[in-house]
Amino acid sequence: MEKTGVLTNQARDFPRWYQEVVAKAELADNGPVRGTMVIRPYGYAIWERMQAELDKRIKAAGAVNAYFPLFIPESFLAREGEHVEGFSPELAVVTHGGGKRLEEPVVVRPTSETIIHSFFAKWIQSHRDLPMLINQWCNVVRWELRPRLFLRTSEFLWQEGHTAHSSESEARDYALRILHEVYEDFIVNVLAIPVLTGRKTERERFPGAITTWTCEAMTRDGKALQMCTSHELGQKFARVFDITYLDNTGDLKYVWQTSWGASTRLMGALVMAHGDDAGLRLPPAIAPVQVVVVLVRDKDGAGEAAGALVAQLRDRGVRVELDARTDTSFGRRVIDWELKGVPLRIEVGPRDLRAQSVMLCRRDTGTKTPVALAVTPTRVEQDLAAVQAALLEEATQLRVGHTVEAEGLEEAELGAREGFAVVAASALRDGGEARLNEAGVSVRCLQSPARAALSDEREACEDRSLLAVVGRAY
Amino acid sequence: MEKTGVLTNQARDFPRWYQEVVAKAELADNGPVRGTMVIRPYGYAIWERMQAELDKRIKAAGAVNAYFPLFIPESFLAREGEHVEGFSPELAVVTHGGGKRLEEPVVVRPTSETIIHSFFAKWIQSHRDLPMLINQWCNVVRWELRPRLFLRTSEFLWQEGHTAHSSESEARDYALRILHEVYEDFIVNVLAIPVLTGRKTERERFPGAITTWTCEAMTRDGKALQMCTSHELGQKFARVFDITYLDNTGDLKYVWQTSWGASTRLMGALVMAHGDDAGLRLPPAIAPVQVVVVLVRDKDGAGEAAGALVAQLRDRGVRVELDARTDTSFGRRVIDWELKGVPLRIEVGPRDLRAQSVMLCRRDTGTKTPVALAVTPTRVEQDLAAVQAALLEEATQLRVGHTVEAEGLEEAELGAREGFAVVAASALRDGGEARLNEAGVSVRCLQSPARAALSDEREACEDRSLLAVVGRAY
Repeated sequence: MEKTGVLTNQARDFPRWYQEVVAKAELADNGPVRGTMVIRPYGYAIWERMQAELDKRIKAAGAVNAYFPLFIPESFLAREGEHVEGFSPELAVVTHGGGKRLEEPVVVRPTSETIIHSFFAKWIQSHRDLPMLINQWCNVVRWELRPRLFLRTSEFLWQEGHTAHSSESEARDYALRILHEVYEDFIVNVLAIPVLTGRKTERERFPGAITTWTCEAMTRDGKALQMCTSHELGQKFARVFDITYLDNTGDLKYVWQTSWGASTRLMGALVMAHGDDAGLRLPPAIAPVQVVVVLVRDKDGAGEAAGALVAQLRDRGVRVELDARTDTSFGRRVIDWELKGVPLRIEVGPRDLRAQSVMLCRRDTGTKTPVALAVTPTRVEQDLAAVQAALLEEATQLRVGHTVEAEGLEEAELGAREGFAVVAASALRDGGEARLNEAGVSVRCLQSPARAALSDEREACEDRSLLAVVGRAY
Repeated sequence: MEKTGVLTNQARDFPRWYQEVVAKAELADNGPVRGTMVIRPYGYAIWERMQAELDKRIKAAGAVNAYFPLFIPESFLAREGEHVEGFSPELAVVTHGGGKRLEEPVVVRPTSETIIHSFFAKWIQSHRDLPMLINQWCNVVRWELRPRLFLRTSEFLWQEGHTAHSSESEARDYALRILHEVYEDFIVNVLAIPVLTGRKTERERFPGAITTWTCEAMTRDGKALQMCTSHELGQKFARVFDITYLDNTGDLKYVWQTSWGASTRLMGALVMAHGDDAGLRLPPAIAPVQVVVVLVRDKDGAGEAAGALVAQLRDRGVRVELDARTDTSFGRRVIDWELKGVPLRIEVGPRDLRAQSVMLCRRDTGTKTPVALAVTPTRVEQDLAAVQAALLEEATQLRVGHTVEAEGLEEAELGAREGFAVVAASALRDGGEARLNEAGVSVRCLQSPARAALSDEREACEDRSLLAVVGRAY
């Protein structure tokens, strides 16, 4: 089977490989307005599974879904200083509606803190209304000058959670619960992508947050990719939007808040974390098609056998598809299914059937094994679990092999050319972080070796053991 | 229990009742930008169930989901004459992005025919690519001068299906399949709302369509509400966007197309078709909470009994919630659950428990029946089915009782004051339809008595038996 030429090799030009695989696996296309994207059915089927898996975890964390308007009055964004400063350069502004010039221009939401908080102020009266835990699935717009499909697009799809709590510690615990129980659990156990968790530096954090927590993954070319963020907002927005409640002693108090989001950027991460020179490699837990049964030739009962196998697998809850397009060359079809990253391929042809067997091919390793027809369904279930575990293990090994411990900033910058470098956070002081940024390297997250995720901004200043993970980022 | 005063009576002021029940049942709020809406968690939970039920049917009809950009170049809309003329007055226009004036202004999608068809032109090459059956769930914007929550909002949520076929008859059959198997089946069997199906007159049809099919419901104040539409687009867009394919003889041909949509307007329909003076009445098939177990007082084991009952019902797959807020008055809680339209309420209190029974209350009829604790789960399942059937029956009786057969336009106009009037379609000619419109009455759909849904524009001119259903519309 001829593979060369289907895609540019990753090693030769990773960004170009990425662009090609996104197009050839039919995940997405560029839209006519610069920076916008069309998510094609195969890509959207993956996104739908991501949504379902995240939504299940978000609901388990007690949040409920709602929907807030796309259009936000310009004045709302201006209320919180850091927030508006952070988003102003990226805003899309509607000046005309219904054939008339609008009295006040409206912005297309870049994120919904301001509009949601204006309703929290109305809905929250007493401690009985807390915690208020709201999530929304929607599109947002941030005008993008250097767009790249899924990773940076002017419009993207995401979920954004917004919560209000009666105490600072409850808000912090919730931000961390979302980070670990929703995001990290989903990314590691469904997407099979290992992540480092920690918090962002002041330069990297969300405009308006007091702490931003993140999950950072490594792509197969050794770069960093931010997968999601979970923010503690403190009382900044509560004071600006006057979100208060009467506590159980009758005192009026400001709430403590969080916000958190994950977007279609995860689609790009999935491609970059697992894909190889033949195309995507999807973990079975997220693959819309887990198994494709490819009919080699419709002869000597092969068609019937393939159909029966598909039915058996479907009965066991496997997401399986039959490829009976025997008028297209077998090689071409195999290349297409490899491009699409289907975890297992079962080739059913007259020759193997004579020995009552089929050929089972693993996408992750490329191994082909003849398997007796009778045990195929059982074997498929075992292999799906094996592929899921193997992809996580491979990505973990890649990260371990591309992470160095650096003595100072110079070594860190050098290490970041190949992957991550871990350096004492104290090295970032006195303009150290800015110098790294000038060299194209950024701090991905700060970790305290003991309890990585639980370290706190104020502790941080005194924590001499605090570590910074730095890298070049997408 | 005091009900008077919770809501304005429907009979006194139906629009005001509607506004109040939407607010007090916590379905939705007005957004800060005129015409926009916030769908609150309880409302959104209903919408999520609507989405799941529709999505299941859409996928069963062979369509797949995808996502196309929110922003459409102004020039795309202008390509099809009727289409741009229909939507121009309602467009929201983005003139600035990323801090700069845009070279070409972009419109926020009012519907996605133009942008999706521009991709169909690229993706469709051969007859093997047909039929192409795409659906998307998204938000759209149509600037609204007289907004009303759910029914007419400047931004709303919907699904829009877009398909391309190799023949006119296949496109027509598909538009009708969606009308009946997706929309009518969902509206009647899940929402318990009876509908009339038929096609729109030329004045009422979608800009750019050759035929628009509709499902029309009656609200409890006797008005008409369009629930969804399914359009045959003929080859109009195919010619404008140059969507061609090579047929199996090698000839280049234009495709035949359909589009179809249903929106958050269905939320308004649900309220208006079933609600009564005490609030919503939700059919069990769509209710986020099918049964609420209300703990009257937490005494003599009532709390434990209520908790055990909830667990039993949940095990049977019933969507059940426990209301143990005994610090709020029982009457207040009952009023709230009635406002929210929960189909069944089970009151668990120490007094009834002494006789090993609970009180089962049906929201639709208001009947309260003591039921032995041991048979309650079985009885609940029976009653949920009974409520579902009773709501459909009641709405059907309402429509039958408010539909008159009219001899001519004058009688039709008179009949439309109280509900629907059915009149010979021939009466609409020579300015008849325009005169009806001036009187605030519109043609909801045209039906051919024999095969209502299958009548066709060209037959129609000659079909002397064709009937018009007319009414006042929301």
